[in-house]
Amino acid sequence: SGGSGGTMASESEAQRALQYEQTLMYGRYTQDLGTFAKDEAARLRLQEGDTARPRRPSELLEYSQGRCAPCRVCALQCQRFLISKVGEDWVFLILLGLVMALVSWAMDFAIATCLQAQKWMYGGLDTNVLLQYMAWVTYPTVLITFSAGFTQILAPQAVGSGIPEMKTILRGVVLKEYLTLKTFVAKVIGLTCALGSGMPLGKEGPFVHIASMCAALLSRFLSLFGGFYENEARNIEMLAAACAVGVGCCFAAPIGGVLFSIEVTSTFFAVRNYWRGFFAATFSAFIFRVLAVWNKDEETITALFKTRFRLDFPFDLQELPAFAVIGIASGFGGALFVYLNRKIVQFMRRQKTINRFLMKKRLLFPALVTLIISTLTFPPGFGQFMAGQLTQKDTLVTLFDNQTWAKQGINDEFEYLGILEAWLHPRSNVFVTLVVFILMKFWMSALATTIPVPCGAFMPVFVIGAAFGRLVGESMAAWFPDGIHTDSNIYRIVPGGYAVVGAAALSGAVTHTVSTAVIVFELTGQISHILPVMIAVILANAVAQSLQPSLYDSIIRIKKLPYLPELGWGHQEKYNVRVEDIMVRDIRYVTLNCKYRDLQQVLHSTKMKNLPLVESAESMILLGSIERTQVGALLSNQLSPQRRLLTLRQKVLSEDGHRLSDSSIRFQISTETSSGTPARPALRKPLKPALKRVSSSPADSPPAGSTDHTGIALKSLFCANATTEPTEAQGTAYHKAKRVRISIVEEMILGDKMTPAEILEWEEQQLDQPVDFSSAKIDPAPFQLVEHTSLHKTHTIFSLLGLDHAFVTSIGRLVGMVSLKELRKAIEGSLTGKGVKVRPPLASFRDSTASTTEADTTALHQLWDRHQHHHMPREAGPGGDDDDDTTK
Amino acid sequence: SGGSGGTMASESEAQRALQYEQTLMYGRYTQDLGTFAKDEAARLRLQEGDTARPRRPSELLEYSQGRCAPCRVCALQCQRFLISKVGEDWVFLILLGLVMALVSWAMDFAIATCLQAQKWMYGGLDTNVLLQYMAWVTYPTVLITFSAGFTQILAPQAVGSGIPEMKTILRGVVLKEYLTLKTFVAKVIGLTCALGSGMPLGKEGPFVHIASMCAALLSRFLSLFGGFYENEARNIEMLAAACAVGVGCCFAAPIGGVLFSIEVTSTFFAVRNYWRGFFAATFSAFIFRVLAVWNKDEETITALFKTRFRLDFPFDLQELPAFAVIGIASGFGGALFVYLNRKIVQFMRRQKTINRFLMKKRLLFPALVTLIISTLTFPPGFGQFMAGQLTQKDTLVTLFDNQTWAKQGINDEFEYLGILEAWLHPRSNVFVTLVVFILMKFWMSALATTIPVPCGAFMPVFVIGAAFGRLVGESMAAWFPDGIHTDSNIYRIVPGGYAVVGAAALSGAVTHTVSTAVIVFELTGQISHILPVMIAVILANAVAQSLQPSLYDSIIRIKKLPYLPELGWGHQEKYNVRVEDIMVRDIRYVTLNCKYRDLQQVLHSTKMKNLPLVESAESMILLGSIERTQVGALLSNQLSPQRRLLTLRQKVLSEDGHRLSDSSIRFQISTETSSGTPARPALRKPLKPALKRVSSSPADSPPAGSTDHTGIALKSLFCANATTEPTEAQGTAYHKAKRVRISIVEEMILGDKMTPAEILEWEEQQLDQPVDFSSAKIDPAPFQLVEHTSLHKTHTIFSLLGLDHAFVTSIGRLVGMVSLKELRKAIEGSLTGKGVKVRPPLASFRDSTASTTEADTTALHQLWDRHQHHHMPREAGPGGDDDDDTTK
Repeated sequence: SGGSGGTMASESEAQRALQYEQTLMYGRYTQDLGTFAKDEAARLRLQEGDTARPRRPSELLEYSQGRCAPCRVCALQCQRFLISKVGEDWVFLILLGLVMALVSWAMDFAIATCLQAQKWMYGGLDTNVLLQYMAWVTYPTVLITFSAGFTQILAPQAVGSGIPEMKTILRGVVLKEYLTLKTFVAKVIGLTCALGSGMPLGKEGPFVHIASMCAALLSRFLSLFGGFYENEARNIEMLAAACAVGVGCCFAAPIGGVLFSIEVTSTFFAVRNYWRGFFAATFSAFIFRVLAVWNKDEETITALFKTRFRLDFPFDLQELPAFAVIGIASGFGGALFVYLNRKIVQFMRRQKTINRFLMKKRLLFPALVTLIISTLTFPPGFGQFMAGQLTQKDTLVTLFDNQTWAKQGINDEFEYLGILEAWLHPRSNVFVTLVVFILMKFWMSALATTIPVPCGAFMPVFVIGAAFGRLVGESMAAWFPDGIHTDSNIYRIVPGGYAVVGAAALSGAVTHTVSTAVIVFELTGQISHILPVMIAVILANAVAQSLQPSLYDSIIRIKKLPYLPELGWGHQEKYNVRVEDIMVRDIRYVTLNCKYRDLQQVLHSTKMKNLPLVESAESMILLGSIERTQVGALLSNQLSPQRRLLTLRQKVLSEDGHRLSDSSIRFQISTETSSGTPARPALRKPLKPALKRVSSSPADSPPAGSTDHTGIALKSLFCANATTEPTEAQGTAYHKAKRVRISIVEEMILGDKMTPAEILEWEEQQLDQPVDFSSAKIDPAPFQLVEHTSLHKTHTIFSLLGLDHAFVTSIGRLVGMVSLKELRKAIEGSLTGKGVKVRPPLASFRDSTASTTEADTTALHQLWDRHQHHHMPREAGPGGDDDDDTTK
Repeated sequence: SGGSGGTMASESEAQRALQYEQTLMYGRYTQDLGTFAKDEAARLRLQEGDTARPRRPSELLEYSQGRCAPCRVCALQCQRFLISKVGEDWVFLILLGLVMALVSWAMDFAIATCLQAQKWMYGGLDTNVLLQYMAWVTYPTVLITFSAGFTQILAPQAVGSGIPEMKTILRGVVLKEYLTLKTFVAKVIGLTCALGSGMPLGKEGPFVHIASMCAALLSRFLSLFGGFYENEARNIEMLAAACAVGVGCCFAAPIGGVLFSIEVTSTFFAVRNYWRGFFAATFSAFIFRVLAVWNKDEETITALFKTRFRLDFPFDLQELPAFAVIGIASGFGGALFVYLNRKIVQFMRRQKTINRFLMKKRLLFPALVTLIISTLTFPPGFGQFMAGQLTQKDTLVTLFDNQTWAKQGINDEFEYLGILEAWLHPRSNVFVTLVVFILMKFWMSALATTIPVPCGAFMPVFVIGAAFGRLVGESMAAWFPDGIHTDSNIYRIVPGGYAVVGAAALSGAVTHTVSTAVIVFELTGQISHILPVMIAVILANAVAQSLQPSLYDSIIRIKKLPYLPELGWGHQEKYNVRVEDIMVRDIRYVTLNCKYRDLQQVLHSTKMKNLPLVESAESMILLGSIERTQVGALLSNQLSPQRRLLTLRQKVLSEDGHRLSDSSIRFQISTETSSGTPARPALRKPLKPALKRVSSSPADSPPAGSTDHTGIALKSLFCANATTEPTEAQGTAYHKAKRVRISIVEEMILGDKMTPAEILEWEEQQLDQPVDFSSAKIDPAPFQLVEHTSLHKTHTIFSLLGLDHAFVTSIGRLVGMVSLKELRKAIEGSLTGKGVKVRPPLASFRDSTASTTEADTTALHQLWDRHQHHHMPREAGPGGDDDDDTTK
């Protein structure tokens, strides 16, 4: 029976192997690399089998023999040519860029229409302030509530920015339903409504997500034609390019888009992917702007927020301290924004009464927030002090304006024209308006971005930064009315330049990126302020990074997505902490010659998701790793009622002779593999998304807790099916199949009649058998580190390869394990533990150098001695001591 | 004696461990990671020992007990504070930026002075054309010859661009003498002279090299104060930042500098390093430009080649095809340039007569090339048709000019002003001048960059590209004198914009980068042409990358530096080739229980630099890897005359009783380890630089060929020392030491009297002993792949981790090995083998899926069976079959 079981296993293995392909390299996350869309596509392909695939011409030639063959052949070749082209990267990237440009443009159009409608309503009702107020407040509330409700119903995954999730996905984690068509639709419509409401929300983050979904869907669509879209590595590359496209077509900033997406989503970036991002983002930005030209919005392709600062003398050298001040202040402001945003979320969660209430009425919170914010921005009300009637885009245009607003000295002739008028208040001055604007928008943006609609925080922060820069610029202009430069020419100070610097600095501080500098150059179409912008952005980053995580990392932590903290600026001690300082030494393992009882033991004693497989307990040579679910499957397989029945039946068989045919055995076993092992789906079970704590251990390992009674439990489950089966079976035409089926049912009932005591006895007996690993999936090369590896290097490798865990070995022997958890603890422990440091970093460095090298030698000696032991004494005289060496 | 040998070994091990620290992780290149400077610094520290190190305050407190203690403590704390600050990254980066800005500015100043001098001489001699010609030709010839000679004498490593070498170094290869002070001086002075000569040479590449040397020297200097500069990972990070600084302060282009250096030197880039590059490059560019302001060259900080194109309507949508044409043509041109450059080098090498002649007169070739080029550019001669009197910088300024040169239609009033005059020829038109300029400069630049002086090719190519762009732009302007736009406003075509596009496209094509786009924006201070530039650069890259390697990769291949080719644009078949298709299956290995004879056998039969260490021949479980030199050292150790003498002496000892003290044994063995094993230096032997074929195998493995007679050979070597030793020994004062020494010498002479036959017999006997690995350095965790790993993934991992080789394992068992060579062959084979493809990629994919999974299972089965075998039958009845299983 063992032999036939083997062939059965190899049959199902052939199918598994296909999936195994993708899961070979390292740990779990890398195995799970690739997107949900890819899984879907692969599943589809498997279902469809070979029939739906584009056929080889040879096959098709036979098929079309009868009709006009040459014509067909030609058509086929054309088709093949097209398919081969479709498979190429650049076709994909062009399609992606095109689609995203269209989406971006259409959304911009829709948003502009929505905002226009609000303005029109507000303008039309200027006879009655109350009606005006009602219109002003109701419109965004309805839009936001609709957006929240729509998203909630269609795809809750669409809520929020999307950048944190993309970062996690690019690290190799599979997030369920995160790149599907449903989410795409929900995000696009939800975002349009949310932005159309005029709330301080952004579109950059969501666009990254939208572009990624677009790429996933596109690759799924194209995989119907070509065969190249199955590869996981390629999918990750395409997703990375998609992120660049998202930013690129949102701001018409291809270079900034590529850089920003790299900084925000990657830890290590493959330079060979660079061109993909540039290509797609450029194409997308190009189409996006060409659409504007065709729509007669623009005369030609220019920047989105074009500035017209003078080129000859953009700024004076002595203005640089002011730019530096903007940078430092933006750093603090950015950190405060992240802190505030997190605190709001945490407050809403912690307050149980609020929370319970909001849980019931999910749409109340968005509506309430919108009501408050739109009330405060009502132009005839408080809004008059903060340029409330301007949309986000208008605000930015006015802030980047060329003119100086402060009516000081010779600027008397200056008049507030057009939309600039909003900043002027007859009874107050521009400085007050700016300060009020900054303060109000700051908390409004932090609050608004917590609303459960698709929205980003980049643009609001960008606007606040621009306003702050403008404030500093206006102050400087008021202070030095004739400019600082004392030479012949008078170069007045350009406050618009300060606004550009401020925008880059604050958005850089919040997102922890320096590429916001490039984004502002592309947005404004001028690069003359490059040095002030760079200085401010770098200073802002330095300050913000030392105070708070980036907004996206903060959201990752809030959402409890798996992450690996970055090594901060110049933490030199990281170079001196070693793996041996942080690794878990006391780990459970599976030996090659263990019994099922040992497996049970291991499953009970640990919650590790990957168990190391070692040669034997005394050699501890690491052979591979086996997933917990696989171990569970092995166990439940061994104790399954089917096997019990088989045993029983074999007894009966020896009495009855060859009553049953081989086919029935086969049938029985195939039933078993399909229903008895829930290993595969549980294995690739994606994480639950968005603001829910991941309940990993009970869900992931059903066999673990219940292995003792798994037999009985499975039996009852199986019998429930069994009782219904005969009725189904009666409908079948083939007599033989029916007979086989009935005979199984008979035996199941027969097996059912075993008493629980008998079953337990049988199970105990089964547990003492040695484990047959041949049907289990073993990762044959789990990632290995050595004890000396520095924390710095470990961090590098974990983030490079997207590892989840690594085993620590010493000359082949397993000595410990490091998982993301330990690494996280080690990094954050030394980052946050400012007061007490358990041991000085250099000390641990010096100890470990001496001690572990000795340990290494000892380990080798042991291994060597064991071998000496093994072979040498045998020649001298066999027996005694080496026996108890190997059997223990 | 075995026991005492063990303690001896552990003593010398403690010292080795320090070096072992750095060599832990993977293969050879990663072990050798870090710069020469670091090695030097580490060596210095080791030499100086603990005495020269900044002491702990506790130690110093005791020391200063007697004098004014509080004062000292305060001073100490200040010192410690400073040292702790010095250790921080940003201090290092600021210093680096500052130094490089000063170097760049000083060099620019010197170069400008040189060029001025030439102009002055040429201008002053305008009475006599012959004298003028002599001055025009002699001046650059002298400078170039001096530069070549100076570089040749001081540091031949300084020749050339430096980017290829930096790429290799950042991959982890140690190039000898490449980052030393001598090379720094040679490069700076050589480059100044070379550029001062007015030849079409660039400074970008050399600046990358100079900045890297600067970083290495700075870190060596600072390591005298702090303890943080020893780390190899940190050094690599700093070198990467230095490359960015190099480009940044060369062009005052911080963003472009960072991106360019990433694209050119890295395959995978750590985003966490990003800020380092930005910080240092920004600071450096800032100081560089501030120096210009302080020197009254500029009024304020502006771009290096500032353009003043109109902002409102930079270009028409309908001009885009012309930009695309520039891109595509630049792609072909770039590929041609790389091809031409390589062919010139290869031609010079292959022509034996030329070669022999040039080898003798090394300075003749530079002088000859300079003579030809300067003759052709002589302004009253042929130079008048190619704007010969303009320096590179002036050329660029004129090409980026705002005006339209072609005298067409309404442009009659246009006059050639100032330096623009050079482009005007009375008897010819601007188009002819431009075409001649482009054609002549093209081959001149390709030729000039092969001169053995420090020089780059970026700037010449940039200029040629600008000229080509200008040509297209002028043609367009001539074709559409009133612009293309048909609406109300007339927007004329701006040929300067075309020049910018052309410059970015051609330099992008030659270097295979897209960041040249960013560099031109920063150079010109205008970003309005972003879309044309991006489109042209991407098209140029697409064309050039499909035709030729980048200039730097081409030089890497010419210089035979170790490299890993890039995976090109969309080679999908890479996803389907697997490791098992390319790996070497028949590899030699060392088993844990082998004899010295086996080692000898292995060394004879293979040239692999790293030998896998497996548990036993039948289990094949990979335990680690051992370097070839280590194996050689083990062998020569075993057969060393010292050991022979020890054996001999022990015989004598048993007769003489305890005549010799323990200390003499100790002494003897320490002598042995210092002179007998040449393993360490050979191990870290750096590659020979610059244009010489690396002769790896004979140099690296001296013990391999001569192991048979190693005893005899070593003996004679040792005896030569031994005969001189007594005279030295007589000088020593301590009687005991002398006695010991003499006794050793006595015995050596005694051993010397063994006949060769006796020695051979003794050696044969020694070879049959089992190997003692305890003194050998074993890499306990060599990198492992599995058979299914795709070529794409393998390439990623190799370039990510800078691997040199990886073992292929299957459930712990060694099945093959992949080295850089196989990988290179696999990638290039399928890249170049256009006609014949040995097997269709998909076929291999499908075969392997089925076959290897089965093989995997079989392997596991075998292993499992072996274990079953091992333990089960023993319980039943010990003996027989498992014995021959394990001893074989």
